[in-house]
Amino acid sequence: MLYLNEHDIKEAVSLDEIMDAIEKAFHIYEKDAFFMPDRIHIDKDQNTLLYMPCFSESIFGTKILTLFPDNPKKNEPVTNGLMLLNDRETGKPVCMINGASITAYRTGAVGGVGIRYTSPQNVKNLGVIGTGVQGFYQTLYACKARNFEKVTVFDAYSQKLPEFVLRLQKELPNVEIIAGDSSEEVVKNSDVIITATPSTEPVIPNDKELLKGKHFIAIGSYKPTMHEYPQAIFEIIENLYIDTEFATEESGDIITPLEEGWIKEAQIKPFIDLVNGKKLEEETTLFKSVGMGLFDVVVSELIYTKAKEKGLGQVINL
Amino acid sequence: MLYLNEHDIKEAVSLDEIMDAIEKAFHIYEKDAFFMPDRIHIDKDQNTLLYMPCFSESIFGTKILTLFPDNPKKNEPVTNGLMLLNDRETGKPVCMINGASITAYRTGAVGGVGIRYTSPQNVKNLGVIGTGVQGFYQTLYACKARNFEKVTVFDAYSQKLPEFVLRLQKELPNVEIIAGDSSEEVVKNSDVIITATPSTEPVIPNDKELLKGKHFIAIGSYKPTMHEYPQAIFEIIENLYIDTEFATEESGDIITPLEEGWIKEAQIKPFIDLVNGKKLEEETTLFKSVGMGLFDVVVSELIYTKAKEKGLGQVINL
Repeated sequence: MLYLNEHDIKEAVSLDEIMDAIEKAFHIYEKDAFFMPDRIHIDKDQNTLLYMPCFSESIFGTKILTLFPDNPKKNEPVTNGLMLLNDRETGKPVCMINGASITAYRTGAVGGVGIRYTSPQNVKNLGVIGTGVQGFYQTLYACKARNFEKVTVFDAYSQKLPEFVLRLQKELPNVEIIAGDSSEEVVKNSDVIITATPSTEPVIPNDKELLKGKHFIAIGSYKPTMHEYPQAIFEIIENLYIDTEFATEESGDIITPLEEGWIKEAQIKPFIDLVNGKKLEEETTLFKSVGMGLFDVVVSELIYTKAKEKGLGQVINL
Repeated sequence: MLYLNEHDIKEAVSLDEIMDAIEKAFHIYEKDAFFMPDRIHIDKDQNTLLYMPCFSESIFGTKILTLFPDNPKKNEPVTNGLMLLNDRETGKPVCMINGASITAYRTGAVGGVGIRYTSPQNVKNLGVIGTGVQGFYQTLYACKARNFEKVTVFDAYSQKLPEFVLRLQKELPNVEIIAGDSSEEVVKNSDVIITATPSTEPVIPNDKELLKGKHFIAIGSYKPTMHEYPQAIFEIIENLYIDTEFATEESGDIITPLEEGWIKEAQIKPFIDLVNGKKLEEETTLFKSVGMGLFDVVVSELIYTKAKEKGLGQVINL
């Protein structure tokens, strides 16, 4: 069995290759050529143990994550875990990948693919709200998907904005990275805006004029109680593009707009339509992702295959 | 994180230490000082992916097993997998152990503890029915629990009986290992009889006189359709000792006797009573084990702790 950490992932594949793998996963999803049981949550005290199983035609696997909300007090990340890949014919474990890293890479790539298909080629200004792990990776992929010249970042709850700007600047030396003073400033400055926060209240101003003509990538809300977007956005978009059908049951950014009548069910469209070539002629766009185990399995298989070819990772003697 | 394979397990702990850990697990079970969600089965085609989570007060973990019944045709074992241990305070993965090995070692140890508490000190003859992985490990532990001089083994469905005898003889040079011609011969020759088969029909003769005064360790039946024991045994035992409450819902060797009225519910007793010192004055005994995730977690924690002390295993750079 092979073990791959974040360093190995970086050596094995490019961000563009991971985005291509996400597109492949969208096609597998559309063809229904997979088997993905519901994710399994085990709650113990305030902590969660999560299993995300998925079978594709060539491999299967489980992402096992732990979510310990008190970890930051101990200087540890909230999320830890492992992605396990098994041989499709025998069930034998073939590869394990750092679970937090695979989550960061595949979620960032979904956002990047969202930009590939919802924003014009010539966009120059990116806005990022949320300076956590996802804010970082989303920005890296966005800058692969389009030639952004300037990135404005903001987080209402982070004291670490200057540090975040420095980290991004190091990774993206040819892009101007600046810290915004408000989410309003971020939206005003940007053509494409990524939100990656665990917020329960909108992080985008409720102002139609401000939001018009922009392209939004919504990553944060993965629970019914979480909301990143205000009423105004839903009143100016033609369609809400979603990555998976069950997003409509998981995200507060879909559940609440439907309940409140800000948007109709018929306006909720599968993102795969755009990947398949549907021409987007909408002035303002919103792509909402909640993610799924299929993304993990398809991206992990690519990383595993490339790592084997390149002789990367640590061989474990089972 | 540490990875431990079967070789590391052997170096880290003795069979007696693993049996002691099983006794410790019985005490944790009795005190209810654990949290063990139901095991999760994912069925895909004829194959199964199994998650067995369990939290003790000091650690938690998941045994992830795959059961691929066609594997023997490909010269691969049916069962593969990994035992994952996580830090109780942060959720971080701390250790992985070969899942088939941990299953073999802990299940063998449960049988051994069964013998410790149900059979007299002076028993000399052991019988083993079933020559699979469990037949092998059950025998090793039995010969630690008591000073058996002779072991008679039999398997109605195995062409590999001579090979099995040789493998056991190598591990137990001071014990006479012989191949029996029938299960009747095994029972006749033996004071203690272990059954470790996946049989759906009894593998023990339906003959009260033959069975009287013997001590049976029932390992095989873990599904309602599986039966190793005939009516006769239930008519001559005073009590049926079980390792876990839910055994009454899982094993055909408990479900069928209750349904058929061969035994009354009041006769089904927790094995922990014996570990706690209840004096056993019964002529014929039957101990039925179905196993549980708590055994895996407690035994794995011991192995992990001892392996760390001894500097064993492979360090994985997460």
